[in-house]
Amino acid sequence: MARNSLGREIPETFAGKKLVPYSDPWSVQPHAERSTRQIRRIAHNGSKLVGGLREAIIASGLKSGMTISTHHSLRNGDRLLNELVREIDALGIRDIKIASSSVHVVHSELVPYIRKGVITGLECGVNGLIGELISKGELDCPIIVRSHGGRARSLITGEVPVDVAFLAAPCCDEYGNFNGFFGPSACGSLGYALVDAQHAHKVVAVTDNLVPFPAVPVSIPQSVVDFVATMPSLGDPKKIVSSTTRITTDPIGLQIAKHAATVIEASGYVKDGFSFQTGTGGISLAVAEHVRNMMRRDKVKGSFGCGGITGYFVDMLEEGLFEALFDVQCFDLKAVQSIGRNQRHMEMTAGTYANPFNCGAVVNRLDCAILSATEIDVNFNVNVNTESMGYLLHNTGGHCDVAAGAKVSIVVCPSIRGRLPMIRDEVTTITTPGETVGVIVTERGIAVNDNLPELKEELIRRKAPVKDIRQLRDEIQAVTGVPRPVEFEDKVVGLIEYRDGSIIDVVRKVRE
Amino acid sequence: MARNSLGREIPETFAGKKLVPYSDPWSVQPHAERSTRQIRRIAHNGSKLVGGLREAIIASGLKSGMTISTHHSLRNGDRLLNELVREIDALGIRDIKIASSSVHVVHSELVPYIRKGVITGLECGVNGLIGELISKGELDCPIIVRSHGGRARSLITGEVPVDVAFLAAPCCDEYGNFNGFFGPSACGSLGYALVDAQHAHKVVAVTDNLVPFPAVPVSIPQSVVDFVATMPSLGDPKKIVSSTTRITTDPIGLQIAKHAATVIEASGYVKDGFSFQTGTGGISLAVAEHVRNMMRRDKVKGSFGCGGITGYFVDMLEEGLFEALFDVQCFDLKAVQSIGRNQRHMEMTAGTYANPFNCGAVVNRLDCAILSATEIDVNFNVNVNTESMGYLLHNTGGHCDVAAGAKVSIVVCPSIRGRLPMIRDEVTTITTPGETVGVIVTERGIAVNDNLPELKEELIRRKAPVKDIRQLRDEIQAVTGVPRPVEFEDKVVGLIEYRDGSIIDVVRKVRE
Repeated sequence: MARNSLGREIPETFAGKKLVPYSDPWSVQPHAERSTRQIRRIAHNGSKLVGGLREAIIASGLKSGMTISTHHSLRNGDRLLNELVREIDALGIRDIKIASSSVHVVHSELVPYIRKGVITGLECGVNGLIGELISKGELDCPIIVRSHGGRARSLITGEVPVDVAFLAAPCCDEYGNFNGFFGPSACGSLGYALVDAQHAHKVVAVTDNLVPFPAVPVSIPQSVVDFVATMPSLGDPKKIVSSTTRITTDPIGLQIAKHAATVIEASGYVKDGFSFQTGTGGISLAVAEHVRNMMRRDKVKGSFGCGGITGYFVDMLEEGLFEALFDVQCFDLKAVQSIGRNQRHMEMTAGTYANPFNCGAVVNRLDCAILSATEIDVNFNVNVNTESMGYLLHNTGGHCDVAAGAKVSIVVCPSIRGRLPMIRDEVTTITTPGETVGVIVTERGIAVNDNLPELKEELIRRKAPVKDIRQLRDEIQAVTGVPRPVEFEDKVVGLIEYRDGSIIDVVRKVRE
Repeated sequence: MARNSLGREIPETFAGKKLVPYSDPWSVQPHAERSTRQIRRIAHNGSKLVGGLREAIIASGLKSGMTISTHHSLRNGDRLLNELVREIDALGIRDIKIASSSVHVVHSELVPYIRKGVITGLECGVNGLIGELISKGELDCPIIVRSHGGRARSLITGEVPVDVAFLAAPCCDEYGNFNGFFGPSACGSLGYALVDAQHAHKVVAVTDNLVPFPAVPVSIPQSVVDFVATMPSLGDPKKIVSSTTRITTDPIGLQIAKHAATVIEASGYVKDGFSFQTGTGGISLAVAEHVRNMMRRDKVKGSFGCGGITGYFVDMLEEGLFEALFDVQCFDLKAVQSIGRNQRHMEMTAGTYANPFNCGAVVNRLDCAILSATEIDVNFNVNVNTESMGYLLHNTGGHCDVAAGAKVSIVVCPSIRGRLPMIRDEVTTITTPGETVGVIVTERGIAVNDNLPELKEELIRRKAPVKDIRQLRDEIQAVTGVPRPVEFEDKVVGLIEYRDGSIIDVVRKVRE
C-alpha cells in the first residue's frame, strides 16, 4: 500500500497489474509506442459476411482468456453485448475480459455469466447492478474504471490489448464500411468505436441494417474491418437515445443554472471564439439556454461545442452561435439527424476528444464546461462513481478529462440530495482531482477554487453568492447533519484510474 | 541476380535493401505489424505554432540521415517540397531521403540538392527531369518507384519509416486540425497525406491559410499533428489542379473511347451497383461520357466512382448515376468544391484506396477501370514509367493497384505515338503485370486477355474489332517498322516495386 497525492491508499498490484499511484494531472509522461496490430491481406474479392454472432466469434478466433470490446453509443438500448456474451458462453469460451467503452444498466444480464466464469474481468467502468454486486463482494470480477480519454489511451498505448472488437454498425455494407447515422438503430457518432477499429487486433462489424455497397458516408472503413456479421436488431431505438433533453423546471435546478450562467459570464470567455461543453440533464440544458441568450445578446460567434452532443447544441450550431460541433456521441435523435447531414457537425474519436497522451485533445481547447457530481469535498475533489451507500454505480465518462481540459470547469450540484449533504470533508471516491475543478455551483452559493482568483474577484464584484467551500459545507451540514460514513472492508474490488493511467482511488467492498 | 516470374533480372540488393523478386499479384503475404510511433503528451495549452519552415525543421528534430515526406495533392503547383529542401540545406542537414507520395516536374529544382548530397535517395516515384538524369547516370540517387497503394503499404508496414512528414495544409488552425477543401491553395482530398499523418514519426502541418480554431471539417486532426508552420504560399493555384478536363476531340482518341465503351457495355457490369474509375485525360473523359449516356439510357443506379476524381464524376454523382465517390485526390476545381460540401463525395486514404495489405481496398470493388499506357507488350504487361528513350519519366500512380483490383481493367492507348508502335514484344519497363490487365484498346482494335474468355466472346458477338494481341502488334509494326531497342548498361539505377513490395522491374542506366 502507498498513499497517492490525494491521500488515498493504493495497493501495489491489482488483478496482477502493477499500479502507479496518482500524483498530479499533468506530469505523467507516456513511455510507449502506439499499439499495433498484425497486418493481414484478405483474399481478393473474398466475402466478409460470416453469418450471425456465433459465426463471427468463431471466425474471429476468439479464445478463452482473451479480451473483447463493444461501444456504448447505443447506451441502454444496446442488445449486442448481452447477446455476444450468451454466444461466447454457448461456444464454451471462458475467462473473457470486457473492455467496452462503457457498460450500462441493460447489461445486468451479464451477471450470471460473470458468476459462471465466462466473464472474469472488466477493463471498463459500468453503470448499475454489476458495479453494485462487485461493491457488495457478491461478484468476483476485478474492475478498472476509466474515463473516455483514459480508455482511448489504454487501447492506443496497448495497455489494454483488445483481441476482438465487436462493433455495432447501424448502417453497414457487406465489405465492412459503416456509419452510425442511419438505420433502425442509428446512434449518430461512433466516436468510441473509432478507437477500437484502429487498435483492436480483429474487428467485427455487427449490423441489423446491411445496405448496398458503399455505406455512405464511411465513418469506419472496410480496410480495418475483418468480418461483417448480422443480428436481427442491434438495439431498442427508444433507449438508444434516452437522456433527459428538457430544461429542468425544478426551482433548485433553475437557481443552480442561473448561478452557473453568472460564473460563465464572469469568466470573460463568452466572446468570439467561445467554446463550451455541457452534458445532458435538465440543469445543463438550463445553463446552455442562459449561455445561448448571452451569445445572442452580445452577438458572439462561438468556436465550438464538444463532447456528447444534444439537439440543443445542434440548434446553436444552426443558429450560427458556434462554428462547429465535435461529437463523440449523440445524446438525442436531433443530434443523430444533424451529424448525418451537416459537415460542421463533426464525428470525433474518443482519442482526439480526450486522450491525454497525444498531440493535444479537443478538451484542451475548452473555455467553459458544465460537469455533474454525486459528491464534492472541501478540496474540490469530485466523485461521480459511487453513490451514498458506497456502491460503484456509475462510469466516469469524460468527467476528469473535461475538468482537466477546460479553462473553467464548473460542477453543478444541488447542495442536498435525499437528505444527504453533497459537499463533505471527504468524498467516498475521487473521480476527478480538485486541482482541475474550477467552480462548485449549488443553489446555496458558489465556491471558487483558489487557482482562479480573478474569477473569484469578478464574481464578488458582480455580487454573486461566492462562499468559501468550507462555509458552504457548514451551511449544508447545519441542515442535514453530518452523515454517518459508509463503512468499507479492506478488500479492494475495483480501481478508479485517472486519465493518465495512474490510480486516483480504489473501490473497496462495502461492509454490510 | 535472379529472374522474376516475368523474366526480369532483379539484383539481390539495391541501396542496401534486400529485394524480393515479383512472383504474382496475389500470393505475397505480409509478415509485419502495423508501424507505430512514439506516443507523446504535449504540454497542456502549449502552442504548436513554430514560425516558418526553418523553425519547423528545427522543432521536428530532423537530422542528417533521416527520411522526410510531403504529399502531392498540390501536384505541379507545389512550392513546399522545393522550399523545404532549400531550408534543410541551409541548416546544413545532409543525406536526407524523400518518401513523398509523388514528385512532380516542378521539383526539378531539387537537382542541385541531390548533386550536393542534401538528398541522397528517393523512396518514391518521380515525374520529369530527376528521373531522366538518374536514367542517364548523371544523378547518383537510388530511387524506388511505388504505386499509390504500395506507397501506403510501405509506410503502414514500416518498411519506409518517415521521420518527419511536412504536410501542406490548405485550411489549418493553430492547433493543427486541417483539411484541403478551402483556402488559396485548396486541393480537395488529402488522401495521400492521411497515411503520413498516422504513420510518420513527427507531423508538421504547413499552411498558407491559418484559420480560427477549428478548421472545419477536420480531415487530419490536431491529435496527430506535432507542429504548425506557415509559409506565404503553398502553391500556385493554377497548377494545383491542372489535369486535362476536356473530352478529346482527336479522331483517334474518339475511336479508342468508343471501343472502350463497347468493352464496358459488353462486360455486363453496367447495371445497378456499377462501379467505375477513369483517370484524367481526354480519352478517359470521352469514355466516361459514353458510360454516362449508357447509364442514363438504361436508368442504371451505379454504386461508386473512385480514385482521382474529376468534375465529370461530380456531375455523375449529382445526377444520381453514382451513390458515392471515393476520392483519393481531386483532379480539378469542381471536384475540390464538391468534396467540401457533399457527404457522398468522400475523402479516402491511399491505404483504403489501394493498399493490398489490409482488410480490403476500395479498388477491389471496382467493376471497370480505364487505365493508360506508354507501352504494352504481347503478354499484356504495361509500362507507364519509362518513355521511348528509356528514361524514367513517370510515376506509377494507382496503375497496378487498379489493374489488380478491377474486374475488367481496360488500357486505352493509341497504337502509334511519335511514329513508335505502342504494342511490342517486350515493354521497356513492366509497371503492371499482364495477368491483371483485362483488355487493350487501340483505335485499330481490341485485344482481350485470355483470362476473360466470356468478355471476348461477347465482344465478338457484338462485332467489335477483337484481335489477337500479336496480330495487333503485327499490324502496327507493319506501319511503324520494328523500332531499334533502347540500349541499357548493366547498372541498376532504380527499382519498380510492385504494390506488394516485390520487385517487378528495375530501371537501368541508358547507354548514350
